[in-house]
Amino acid sequence: MRPPFFDNWLWQVIIPSTIPNLECPISTTMFEFTLQATCGHARVGVFRTPHGDLSTPVFAPVGTQATVKTMTPRDLSELGATLVLANTYHLYLRPGSGLIEGLGGLHRFMGWDGPLLTDSGGYQVFSLKTLRKVDIDGVTFRSHLDGSTHHFTPEKVIAIQEELGSDIAVCLDECAPPLDRAYNEEAMARTHAWAVRCRASHRRTEQALFGIVQGGVFPDLRIESARFITSLDFTGHAIGGLSVGESKEQTYATLDLLNDCLPQDKPRYLMGVGTAQDFFEAVARGVDIFDCVLPTRLARHGAALTQYPIPNTQSQRGRLNLKNAQYAADEAPIEDSCGCYTCRTFTRAYLRHLLVAGEILGLHLLSIHNLHFLLDLMRRIRASILDGTFEQLTTAWRTPSDV
Amino acid sequence: MRPPFFDNWLWQVIIPSTIPNLECPISTTMFEFTLQATCGHARVGVFRTPHGDLSTPVFAPVGTQATVKTMTPRDLSELGATLVLANTYHLYLRPGSGLIEGLGGLHRFMGWDGPLLTDSGGYQVFSLKTLRKVDIDGVTFRSHLDGSTHHFTPEKVIAIQEELGSDIAVCLDECAPPLDRAYNEEAMARTHAWAVRCRASHRRTEQALFGIVQGGVFPDLRIESARFITSLDFTGHAIGGLSVGESKEQTYATLDLLNDCLPQDKPRYLMGVGTAQDFFEAVARGVDIFDCVLPTRLARHGAALTQYPIPNTQSQRGRLNLKNAQYAADEAPIEDSCGCYTCRTFTRAYLRHLLVAGEILGLHLLSIHNLHFLLDLMRRIRASILDGTFEQLTTAWRTPSDV
Repeated sequence: MRPPFFDNWLWQVIIPSTIPNLECPISTTMFEFTLQATCGHARVGVFRTPHGDLSTPVFAPVGTQATVKTMTPRDLSELGATLVLANTYHLYLRPGSGLIEGLGGLHRFMGWDGPLLTDSGGYQVFSLKTLRKVDIDGVTFRSHLDGSTHHFTPEKVIAIQEELGSDIAVCLDECAPPLDRAYNEEAMARTHAWAVRCRASHRRTEQALFGIVQGGVFPDLRIESARFITSLDFTGHAIGGLSVGESKEQTYATLDLLNDCLPQDKPRYLMGVGTAQDFFEAVARGVDIFDCVLPTRLARHGAALTQYPIPNTQSQRGRLNLKNAQYAADEAPIEDSCGCYTCRTFTRAYLRHLLVAGEILGLHLLSIHNLHFLLDLMRRIRASILDGTFEQLTTAWRTPSDV
Repeated sequence: MRPPFFDNWLWQVIIPSTIPNLECPISTTMFEFTLQATCGHARVGVFRTPHGDLSTPVFAPVGTQATVKTMTPRDLSELGATLVLANTYHLYLRPGSGLIEGLGGLHRFMGWDGPLLTDSGGYQVFSLKTLRKVDIDGVTFRSHLDGSTHHFTPEKVIAIQEELGSDIAVCLDECAPPLDRAYNEEAMARTHAWAVRCRASHRRTEQALFGIVQGGVFPDLRIESARFITSLDFTGHAIGGLSVGESKEQTYATLDLLNDCLPQDKPRYLMGVGTAQDFFEAVARGVDIFDCVLPTRLARHGAALTQYPIPNTQSQRGRLNLKNAQYAADEAPIEDSCGCYTCRTFTRAYLRHLLVAGEILGLHLLSIHNLHFLLDLMRRIRASILDGTFEQLTTAWRTPSDV
């Protein structure tokens, strides 16, 4: 199969010598994706990986530096986490992907024997302001650790992820400011050229490679990007460039559009998105995989995710800032209805004490709660799709009971 | 019973109005101490507390601010910890012992339902250099948190510990530099006067109160202190003022002396001591209870406790500094023979990565290992006393095999 955009200028000018071998085998049985049920556009599926089957939709906690912050692998398993994301950029710089490969790969290194997903590193390069130069060949950047200069090409990014040995790798992409049309046109062109080269250089058969769709909030660009990326026969498709500055309406409109453009029979991964509201809206638009640093980052800021607004508080709806003095003698758990270890065992007063006293255990206990909150919500979403009550669950969530 | 020193100057001058009611009931069944086996002077016993029976000798991890740093209560239970120490000084200042009492006491506050031991707060007052004035009535000090002024009297320190609701409380004492005779004479006199007042003011029947023996490295002072403190009919006896600057020989000579002076039928608690070597030496001299911040403090410095010298390293014997570059690609666990979660799961290379990257999980995993190391050693010591092989275990420990 030749990609439909094979004859466009980009293809011919930029990548004449790297025409991908699209007959390169991608194991379909190893990464079989089976839909089990749908409810509107929401779907429940099973995505087979070399480290186990993933029930989708699935939320992946983020283990930036080969650790989901404060959590052991067994803590994650107990919470029901099945997929973990690790950051290519960070691990490439420290301790080094070659070192990790020499130690048996990332699974063994971090003690996680479930499925692993790696990002491309591109997001950090562009967002950490370490960027020096981007051109059609790749990006040159300075390490945020020591200022040393590095060059990421599509091939390099694939090689790093192959060294890490994740179950799911993604292509190098460029995430542009979502409302800047000119920028998005250029960035998308680079992303497409890089996708071709990533696809061509990827060799690790026990690793799925996902292409990334870009295009900001512009429907024509998103359609063009989806057409191009899906033509390259990736195992799955990632949706980049959302939740990075556009409105929620624009996010959801883009997801609606992509739900029509992306093939139903391959998993869709919405990158970096992970609030409860986003889960409902994106699952309703056919998204299968999520990742987000939100639960562990909020924990480090002393905030707990909650389903309901907290009565008599100034907390942001659905978030409890446990450093507030009003919780100093509060005997309640974070949320009465929560079944996590933290809520079963500790009061808000104790959690506040730990946070105020600078005790690490406070961050750990909040991380447990916040991860449980999102993982448990995703379990309930899956169950509701299976029994046909996804809309009711969505409605119930949107309309909190009087508490 | 009148204490034998009842007529001395100190007693008459300082505490005429607070003669303790030595008939005040101390429940002997609630805090029954039963010796099960001895091996030389080493003993295995069971110390009954309202929150469960303690098998002695026992090592108590330190939960300074109502948390053993980085560890959940269930982590501690899994490691086999049975007794935890919390710091009166820190909890009095933050979050406040009254607040903890209002929340149901320290056990409930920190989610630990096993036996709890509290210190008197005196050690922090004297060691944190927050001291403003000490006299026979008590100590005035500034908070290390906000500079506010506070006054600890013997009665106040007992009241705080009663609010916390620990199973074992101790008297206010003054820990002097161990080699300064004049200082020790004065400090011991104050410690004795305070012990009388602590004993008199203590009312909580479901809490054991231990008297503290002081006297530095001076045998006559230690004998005098032991005689005075044991005359006050405490539930157990604490040994203060050791491992604070004197030589190991002086420490052990003092323990030899106190082994003869302290009654066999009450538990002995050696405060703030917790290396493997100290365990063997002190257990051999009849000590039953230990506490020390060493395992968690070393973890925060990136150091792991090990039984054997590590071959081909410059690490201090029995300690592994995991930040060293030589471990960057080291596939071995901290110690092959160790059965803790950290050693069963992770390589030195991964632990070093976490420490170098500033990841909290590194501190947690090292704390698990270091606590396991000491708790497991104490289990082996207890078993060896029960089966009469304590001396063999001591010898084997002192003579590491060739590795």
